[in-house]
Amino acid sequence: MKDAIEQALRCKIDVPIGCVIKKDGKIIAAAHNRREADNDITAHAEILALKEAQNTLNSSRLKDCEMYVTLEPCPMCSWAVIQSGITSVYFGSYNPQYGALISNPIFKSLTNSPLKVYGGIEEDKCNKILEEFFKSIR
Amino acid sequence: MKDAIEQALRCKIDVPIGCVIKKDGKIIAAAHNRREADNDITAHAEILALKEAQNTLNSSRLKDCEMYVTLEPCPMCSWAVIQSGITSVYFGSYNPQYGALISNPIFKSLTNSPLKVYGGIEEDKCNKILEEFFKSIR
Repeated sequence: MKDAIEQALRCKIDVPIGCVIKKDGKIIAAAHNRREADNDITAHAEILALKEAQNTLNSSRLKDCEMYVTLEPCPMCSWAVIQSGITSVYFGSYNPQYGALISNPIFKSLTNSPLKVYGGIEEDKCNKILEEFFKSIR
Repeated sequence: MKDAIEQALRCKIDVPIGCVIKKDGKIIAAAHNRREADNDITAHAEILALKEAQNTLNSSRLKDCEMYVTLEPCPMCSWAVIQSGITSVYFGSYNPQYGALISNPIFKSLTNSPLKVYGGIEEDKCNKILEEFFKSIR
């Protein structure tokens, strides 16, 4: 998670969210939220990391890969993660409003995906990064 | 919808799904499913069209835009559409398994988005394109 946090801290104008994807203990993709920087609603850290991982592996099947992300993924990213075949997701902060893996298990009726999800990893650190960002823009 | 159908027919190895986005009666983005062609699980017709529309308008707010797509969008694309601020979605074929706008209204608990959705537009034509594709690969 420390690598995902380091990614989050690279955000300049965006909500600080970072993501890395590992395979066999090695980082194969790393990205941070670029929604505002790129003026692109799809440029979430997870989507950018998924695309990089696909490029790195030259495959759209991210078997035996683990995602570390500082905030619980939204529905768009969650569905992309499920489709990618990623094995496990470890996230930091819970997103009670839009988190779609644990906080709002909206996909339970659509899929019995074997994706394993672990929330609250380094939660205090991840929460603090978000809190400081929102305090700074107020 | 005929422009979206024309896009769908451009798919070579992919499930034929096409999408256009219009503003003030003009097409500002057109794309077809490139999931297999690009080896990218995010390369759905809708995501590619959204990105093109953002580029065309130089804005991530697709206000007063309408999307025409030959198949009901999946959860990833549906959430992206909701986030984009698109006004209306017109889709052709229903997707009972994974369609997330009408068939499985999974976002009802998350958002009271003002997005208007109309399903079954040119449904027979859109169904036929999909049926012929799946027959051909069997």
